[in-house]
Parts: sequence; structure tokens; C-alpha cells
Amino acid sequence: MMRIAVVAVGDELLLGDGVNSNLTWLARELAQAGMQTVRGIEVGDNLAELVPALRGALEVADAVVVTGGLGPTSDDRTREALATLGGVELRRDPELASTIGAWFAERGRPAPQSVFGQADVPEGARPLGNGLGTAPGIHIEIAGRPVYAVPGVPTEMRLMFGATVLPDLRSRAGSPRPLLTRQARVSGVGESAVADRLAEVEADLPAQIALAYLASPGEVRVRLTGIDPQQLDAWLDRVASVLGEDVSGFGDETLPATVLWLLVARSETVATAESLTGGAVASALVDIPGASAAFVGGVVAYATALKVQLLGVDAGLLETNGTVDPQVALEMARGVRSRLGADWGISTTGVAGPLPEAAVEPGTAFIAVVGPSVERVVQVKQMGGRDLVRQVVRVRVLDLLRRSLLAAGSGRPDPEHTP
Amino acid sequence: MMRIAVVAVGDELLLGDGVNSNLTWLARELAQAGMQTVRGIEVGDNLAELVPALRGALEVADAVVVTGGLGPTSDDRTREALATLGGVELRRDPELASTIGAWFAERGRPAPQSVFGQADVPEGARPLGNGLGTAPGIHIEIAGRPVYAVPGVPTEMRLMFGATVLPDLRSRAGSPRPLLTRQARVSGVGESAVADRLAEVEADLPAQIALAYLASPGEVRVRLTGIDPQQLDAWLDRVASVLGEDVSGFGDETLPATVLWLLVARSETVATAESLTGGAVASALVDIPGASAAFVGGVVAYATALKVQLLGVDAGLLETNGTVDPQVALEMARGVRSRLGADWGISTTGVAGPLPEAAVEPGTAFIAVVGPSVERVVQVKQMGGRDLVRQVVRVRVLDLLRRSLLAAGSGRPDPEHTP
Repeated sequence: MMRIAVVAVGDELLLGDGVNSNLTWLARELAQAGMQTVRGIEVGDNLAELVPALRGALEVADAVVVTGGLGPTSDDRTREALATLGGVELRRDPELASTIGAWFAERGRPAPQSVFGQADVPEGARPLGNGLGTAPGIHIEIAGRPVYAVPGVPTEMRLMFGATVLPDLRSRAGSPRPLLTRQARVSGVGESAVADRLAEVEADLPAQIALAYLASPGEVRVRLTGIDPQQLDAWLDRVASVLGEDVSGFGDETLPATVLWLLVARSETVATAESLTGGAVASALVDIPGASAAFVGGVVAYATALKVQLLGVDAGLLETNGTVDPQVALEMARGVRSRLGADWGISTTGVAGPLPEAAVEPGTAFIAVVGPSVERVVQVKQMGGRDLVRQVVRVRVLDLLRRSLLAAGSGRPDPEHTP
Repeated sequence: MMRIAVVAVGDELLLGDGVNSNLTWLARELAQAGMQTVRGIEVGDNLAELVPALRGALEVADAVVVTGGLGPTSDDRTREALATLGGVELRRDPELASTIGAWFAERGRPAPQSVFGQADVPEGARPLGNGLGTAPGIHIEIAGRPVYAVPGVPTEMRLMFGATVLPDLRSRAGSPRPLLTRQARVSGVGESAVADRLAEVEADLPAQIALAYLASPGEVRVRLTGIDPQQLDAWLDRVASVLGEDVSGFGDETLPATVLWLLVARSETVATAESLTGGAVASALVDIPGASAAFVGGVVAYATALKVQLLGVDAGLLETNGTVDPQVALEMARGVRSRLGADWGISTTGVAGPLPEAAVEPGTAFIAVVGPSVERVVQVKQMGGRDLVRQVVRVRVLDLLRRSLLAAGSGRPDPEHTP
């Protein structure tokens, strides 16, 4: 197995300014390509630290991927570090410099002098194209081993790694058996409850397959990792049969994508009425390419008066029950469904916190789904901060719609409370 | 300044199974205590990798903090690695063994034989108490430098680090001055343009202050790090005076928070009309606690017909110009402003991709701001994927509102194109 070291460059990493998702992403991509990440290293933006860190990485690995430190500013030192390590000089690449100039010219913006530093490449190194920004990457051979430097901006890093670094690594590695993963996504059930239900499956699992639980707000992913695709598929089937309709999707099928797919399959549409989630439900649907096939639009009725004006919620009801109320949630969903002319209306109302509102505790919410022949409203109670409450409610209302669509499709009576 | 290396142990880190928040947390704690994390290292659960990684950490730092690999299972190898590195044997500590036995007895559970391996300590090392689980930590001196091993479970790690490791580090470091940061946030200007404008400031910067640029979609943060608060404040002032109104906030003041604050200061409100961003602008505002003081609500008019029905956009205009049009953006902002009764209306319309729509290329968008005495519409062109386009447009429309609010406050004529 090819051994790779990954080096992430940036003072901010060592100040604890936010988790470094680049190391994680690269390690996962490499594992999926059948390569082993043997070391992940975070190091600051200065030559005195960077050069020994890179040297150490080269000592333990067959190849090194460096991310960050390629930008135009004075704290971007990866180019110099690679030149130092390779014992060569930096040279300005005229072709790169003109590409960078053209990038700015196309946008009618003057090119700041500093950006041309990005055209400096260690002698003998190969620049790697960047489809998004101006910072090119670098591929250099040091002590007979390839070192690839890619940007630290995640979108640029991912694009360049996939387009240039990974193919080069693959061609060197021959054809290792890639580590494969299968994933079932579960909504609306807690991690330990999922684990309990899968205890028997886990006990039977062969040694070649690893099972892991990855929890995020409102969702748990059950992941199987192994090398035999048929074997993995068979075990994924078993996981899915145990979890039944709690599985909201497989692999990369997110909950919003599943919901849109179920709607499209029925030639139906949905509209959103949001208070607590403030547009996050609509935005999660619009995140999916092709959302317009089933999502018509939504209303963010944050001020109470707008719940009356835009959604037709009864003003007297709001007066007596307040906004965090099952009937209000239901009227919001009904209102957006009829006013926006959709087949389904979904709604959220509640208190995200940090403070209670009108004596309602933070983390209290109601979600509703109204469809052609069903009305459902569910209370959600969620501890935790404002962001967590809003995230969980966003997932829960989409999951309620998903379950309602499944029930509608099967002709089964609706299992949950319907007022 | 005391130089610390942090080593996180665990195969899962190198498989990309989730970001490693332990490294981030430890780096932040150390910075706040006035110590410098010079290297963060992720390494797998085996001696052949672990020993050289720890040796490398000892070479670059005054002290090493290791997290993970202390549990009871066969893949927990930190104890052995420390013994190997220190050139000593592992010895079972009878007191630890009886504490572990008692922990299980108290819970009425049989103690599995494997757990007693956690009572093994390298000769000459000091066990560190764990208030939560069974795994004790280890403090050992190797080559005259302290190495502290703490559990990988975040809650246990944090407790033990705070209770035992940090006090010991502090007593060795004397009373270092904590590392402080100051931050200016810049919207609507690229990283290299910001760096160019600050070139002179950077040249004048004293050695005790470090300046870094942290870019994210549509935003650049300029961060100053140092130890003298007055000196940092003075330099932050200079940065701010160079960047002027391009500074959208300081420290943790995000762009949506700044916009809401400017609105509240004027006792004015805003409503959102979104197509391209699909609710993400509204959601970014609602993310801020207290948003209801200035944000009334919004409309997500994703389907074209809803732009007419909910926002009053002229149907003939949509017919002739399509939806991605400056006049459409303007009518959306006007419509949401008047229909929702807000002082300001803001809008987004465009093509996020991946495919062109009605011959309009992905990444083409129009944003508009309509206020009591101003109307502004701006075209945005953004390369990159669907998510990036939507993120940048979300930031740009909030920034356009911010700039409009500043201009309205100053009584200055509006600098940008006003149709």
C-alpha cells in the first residue's frame, strides 16, 4: 500500500481557530483510493517550522501532499519551503504569470503586484492548474519522492487534488484494491438507539468489514468499510432491513435529496413556511441541483404579523396560544400549501433560544406537514444551543415529510398523531 | 514562549472518519495560556508509526501532549510507545489496578481482564487521574522534556488536561503572557487586494505581532496575533483605517450581525426576496440571536410564477428578460419591501448551476437593495460550484445592504450604480 503523509500549513490551525477539515478530507479520499495516510501534520506559516515538518513527512512516506501556504500574501511560505527542501531556486514562470494577469483582466480588475508571487515555482517543479482561484499548485520530486502542494481553500484544494494529484498518485501506486464504503443514513433516531438495533448485525459482522456510526444533528450515518463490493452490499442490505423506513438514504443521498426525489416520483411539489428555521429548510432543498422540479418556494414568516398576512394563520389563535403552538404550525403549513399552490406544505415554529420567548423554553418547537390527504403535526424538544435546535428542527421537518410521502405512497394509514 | 507539540493517536483520524477536534481544542487552550503549539500530528494506532512520530515531536518542542491510545483494547499503544521511547519497561501500578477494579465494582459490573492493562505505566512515569472514565493518563520525562498522555475521548481529555497537564505546563513556563488575537473582517474584496492595501502596514509591523489572512467565500479576515493588548489595538486601528468601509466587523462580529446592528441602530427593518440563495440569506440573519428586532421575514420565490404572485414582479418583464436580470432583482426587492412592510428589501436572482438556465451561464447573478431613499442593483459573477456561488451571493447581498446602510447614515451620495 502506498504510504502518504499529509501536511496542512497555516498558523490558524495551531491557534485552534477552527477544525482542519482538509486533513480529514484528504485522508478519506486517499483511503478510498487504496492508499494509506501514515501521518497528518499541522504546521505554522514559517520556514523554520515548515522545512523540518516537510522533511519529517518525506522520511516516513512514499509521497507527501501539502495543503495551504500557496496564496499571494507574505505569510504564504510553502513555495519557498519546497525550494529549500529541494535545494533549488524559485523561478517566476512566465506562462503562469500571464495566466494570472489574464484572470484579473477578464474580470476588469487591476492585478495586485502581490499575486504574481504565485507564479514563482521551484526549479524543476511542475505547476498544477487551479480551475477556481489564481493560486497554482506545485508538484516537485524531492529525494525521489513526489511532493504535491495544493491550496488551503477547501474548494480549490478538492478540485486540484481530484484533477491532478490523485491521478498521479494512482499511476504510481499501480492498482491497489481500494477501500470501499457503504453508508445508510438514518433520520429521527438517536445514535445509541440505532446501535442497539444493530447489535446483532455487529456481532455477526466478518472481520473484513468495519462498521462505524457517524452522528450529526438529527442524523446518524451507519458506515461499512471493506474491500469486497458484493460482501459490502449484502451487509448493507442487512443493515437496511433492520432499520426499515428509518433509513432516509444511502451513500451520498442526503435527506433533502431523498425528499425531492420522492416528490418528483409522484409529480408533486412542496412549499415551506418557516419561522424558527428562518429559511434553512428552503435553503437545504435548494442546495440540491434540480430542486426546482419539486420545490416551488417558501415564506419566512419571522415577525408574528407576517404569519397572519402571508400565511393566513388565525390572528386570534396567535393571540391566545402564542406562536409556538401545534395549531399555528398546522395553519402555517396549510397556508403556504394553498397560497403557493403546492401539493405539500411544511412548517416550523418554535424557540431557538438562547432566551425563552413568552414563557416557552428554548428548544421547544412544532413542525407540521400538510399534503393532499394528510395533516401531521409533531412536537420537537431539543436541548442545546440555538444552532443545534435550528439544525435538528430542519432535519426533523424534512424527515416528517419523507415519512408522510412514504405512507402516502403505500396507502398505509398514517402511524403518527394527526389532529 | 514555551513550544508544545500535540500528537493525536488513532487510526480513525487517518481514515478521514470525522474531523479531529482534539488538536484544535488543545491548540486553543495552549494559546490562551501563552504557549505556542508548533506542530500538530495525527498518527495511527501502531508502534512502528507512533514511536517515530513522538520522537519527531520531542525534537521540535519543549513539551509534548499526546491524546488517544490509552484505552483498554489491543489497538491502544500509547503506553508501550512511551516506554519504548523512554527506554524503560511497563510496570503494573497496583494502586491504579485496584482503582480500576473498584470503578467496576461500584457499578456492579464484572471488570474485563483487558481493562487492567490501563494500570500499566512506564517505569518512572507518573499516572494522571481521570475523573470520568477508567483510563488514567501518563506523565513521563523523556530526554529532559515532559510528555503528557491524555485520553482521546474529548470529555475525558479536556478534564484531565485542565486539571493536571495545564497546571504542570504553567509551572514550567513561569508566567507567560497569553497570546491575544484581534481580527478585522472584510467583505466584498478579494484576499490579494486586501493584502496589497495592507502591504505598507505589514512592512511596518513589529516582530511581536503576526498578521494573517483567512479567506472564506466572499470574506477575508485579517488577523493580528501578539501579547500586548494596547499594541494590538493600535495596529488593528491602523488596519481598519486603511481598509475603511470595507471592514464589515471586528472579532466575532459576522456580516449578518453587523447588518442587523446597523438596522437596529436606525430602528429600521429588512425583508428578503430570494431565488438563487433559496432562503440562505434569511437563515443567515436568523442565525443571529435577537434577529427579530430587525428582520421581519422573507419570501423564497423559487418558481418563476411566484416572483409575480408573491413579489409583484412584472410578468411581461420576466417573459422578455428572463429571471436573471437586474430589473427583476430590483422589482423583487421592491416587492418584498412593500408587501412585508419593511424599511429595506434585498433580493437575489441568478443561476447557481451546475447547468446553464435559459442560456445564462452558472455563476451569473443579480443582487438588489431597496431602501427608504436608495435603490441599488449589482451583478455578481462567481466561478465555482453551486454551493460556492450561493455562498458568495449570500455574502454579497448582505454586504451591499451594509454599504447602503452606511451611505444612508452618512448622507453621502450613493457611490455605486443606481438605475
